[in-house]
Amino acid sequence: MQNFELTILGCSSATPTSKRNPTAQLLNIAERFFLIDCGEATQIQLRRFKLKFQRINHIFISHLHGDHYFGLVGLLSSMHLLGRTVELHLYCPAELQEIIEIQLKHSQSHINFNIVYHPHQFINNDLIFEDERVEVRTIVLNHRIPCCGFIFKEKPLMANISKEVIHTYQLSVEQIIAIKTGADLIKENGDVIYNKDLITAVHQPRSYAYCSDTCYDERILEYIQGVDLLYHEATFLQEMEIRAKETFHTTAFQAGMIAQKAAVKQLMIGHYSARYKDLAPLLAEARSVFENTVLANEGESLIIKNYD
Amino acid sequence: MQNFELTILGCSSATPTSKRNPTAQLLNIAERFFLIDCGEATQIQLRRFKLKFQRINHIFISHLHGDHYFGLVGLLSSMHLLGRTVELHLYCPAELQEIIEIQLKHSQSHINFNIVYHPHQFINNDLIFEDERVEVRTIVLNHRIPCCGFIFKEKPLMANISKEVIHTYQLSVEQIIAIKTGADLIKENGDVIYNKDLITAVHQPRSYAYCSDTCYDERILEYIQGVDLLYHEATFLQEMEIRAKETFHTTAFQAGMIAQKAAVKQLMIGHYSARYKDLAPLLAEARSVFENTVLANEGESLIIKNYD
Repeated sequence: MQNFELTILGCSSATPTSKRNPTAQLLNIAERFFLIDCGEATQIQLRRFKLKFQRINHIFISHLHGDHYFGLVGLLSSMHLLGRTVELHLYCPAELQEIIEIQLKHSQSHINFNIVYHPHQFINNDLIFEDERVEVRTIVLNHRIPCCGFIFKEKPLMANISKEVIHTYQLSVEQIIAIKTGADLIKENGDVIYNKDLITAVHQPRSYAYCSDTCYDERILEYIQGVDLLYHEATFLQEMEIRAKETFHTTAFQAGMIAQKAAVKQLMIGHYSARYKDLAPLLAEARSVFENTVLANEGESLIIKNYD
Repeated sequence: MQNFELTILGCSSATPTSKRNPTAQLLNIAERFFLIDCGEATQIQLRRFKLKFQRINHIFISHLHGDHYFGLVGLLSSMHLLGRTVELHLYCPAELQEIIEIQLKHSQSHINFNIVYHPHQFINNDLIFEDERVEVRTIVLNHRIPCCGFIFKEKPLMANISKEVIHTYQLSVEQIIAIKTGADLIKENGDVIYNKDLITAVHQPRSYAYCSDTCYDERILEYIQGVDLLYHEATFLQEMEIRAKETFHTTAFQAGMIAQKAAVKQLMIGHYSARYKDLAPLLAEARSVFENTVLANEGESLIIKNYD
């Protein structure tokens, strides 16, 4: 099966702590490396975990609070200084372009690769990236400033036919293509071998939804329904529900509720307030509602499984 | 003696490595905490080394290459989020104000403390900070974009008179003030006690010169003459002299030459190119010219001694 692996680079909320960095994640789908948010020191985290950052060609920034993008201009500078010439795509609020360009101007710097800006429209289900393997769409989140989540989906794979089957039935190229797209095999004597007996089982396309930052908002449910992994912020414990609402954030309990109502396969929580040194209570609270929950932990990778 | 202590937070040049962060230093003179440059992740380094960043009231930025200021907006944000209300002074190129304000604007953020900008004039010996204990002046450096170094100097301390001397001669307040400012004591019987026999030895004011980034330029010598500690960048080994010149940087050999010609008491080198994993050759090269050289090492503090 192709790679579908998420690595956490930072899982802190607004202020970093001595143990946790601000938000950033690296998602590898079939060797496409997507960087999701880019808090301060993301380039240092990438080096620390030995992840080659020149392989990143697409960066998705959810919103313009600093803990989600302050590391971007440094990463772009280092990509340039280390010789990058490959085009880079930035999916972000439109204003980020001005923030980057003003810094390049005042440092009298030129970046030796093209940056293609894809400004967010802040509409649901907007297809912002697509190639033969993956598509990425937006989810509008409910935060203090305009904010987008993202859903990364594999495209359905063509069925596979084993070498043994090809050999047994002496299949021609035309027959292989026909079977891959669903046809049965009709032998010369008229016998029919059904498609399901010719192909290797094909997994359902997997999906990952990234929701940070947002208050509890059930309007996202229809867009994240049944995803294989949901990352949802859980800045506070439920005892801080009022504070969560005031700051347009979510509690661990509420993140569990969203996961349950959307019938996702697995939940990862993160974006922890600096007040929580021990994350176990956040995990326990989310699990009290939605059992298959894990904590975002820096440096850890999670392979997104297929539950079907 | 009052504190005069330098702590290195980052000593890498343009690109951070997995072991070294971009430039930042914390200087404590008599409990004034001066932050000198603020590369990416400076706030994380401050936390890592358990240095309370709310005590910093004055930040000096040498120039607008990102490895010297990309950590500033994150530090300011965290100061705000953690409740700062105390005014902060920023000594920096004028354009930095626009860079900070545009980011506050687009994040719809307000910072709850006043930032007082002191834009560099880029002239030598410009007095940019002064209080009863310390003064700070600029040195114009020779870099690809306008760049300032800084000289931090203690002010001369008034002479001290021991309790025993005050008791022995039954000194009045008027006599104490006169003696502290240099007068001899004339006793009632006409005997003269010379000033030097009344006062405790007072150390000469100490000084620290910070020079980063710059190519080899002897025009700085007159301003840094005889300082107790000179920090001078040493991005490359002498075998890279041409590259150093092209990029307006200095070699370790050249940093040693500057220290020798300025007759400084001690030299610290830093701003190492990411190509050097082992720093021993840089140290050896600088020491071949100027023996009393040390390496800038992250997390290490150096107490600036009085050599007189």
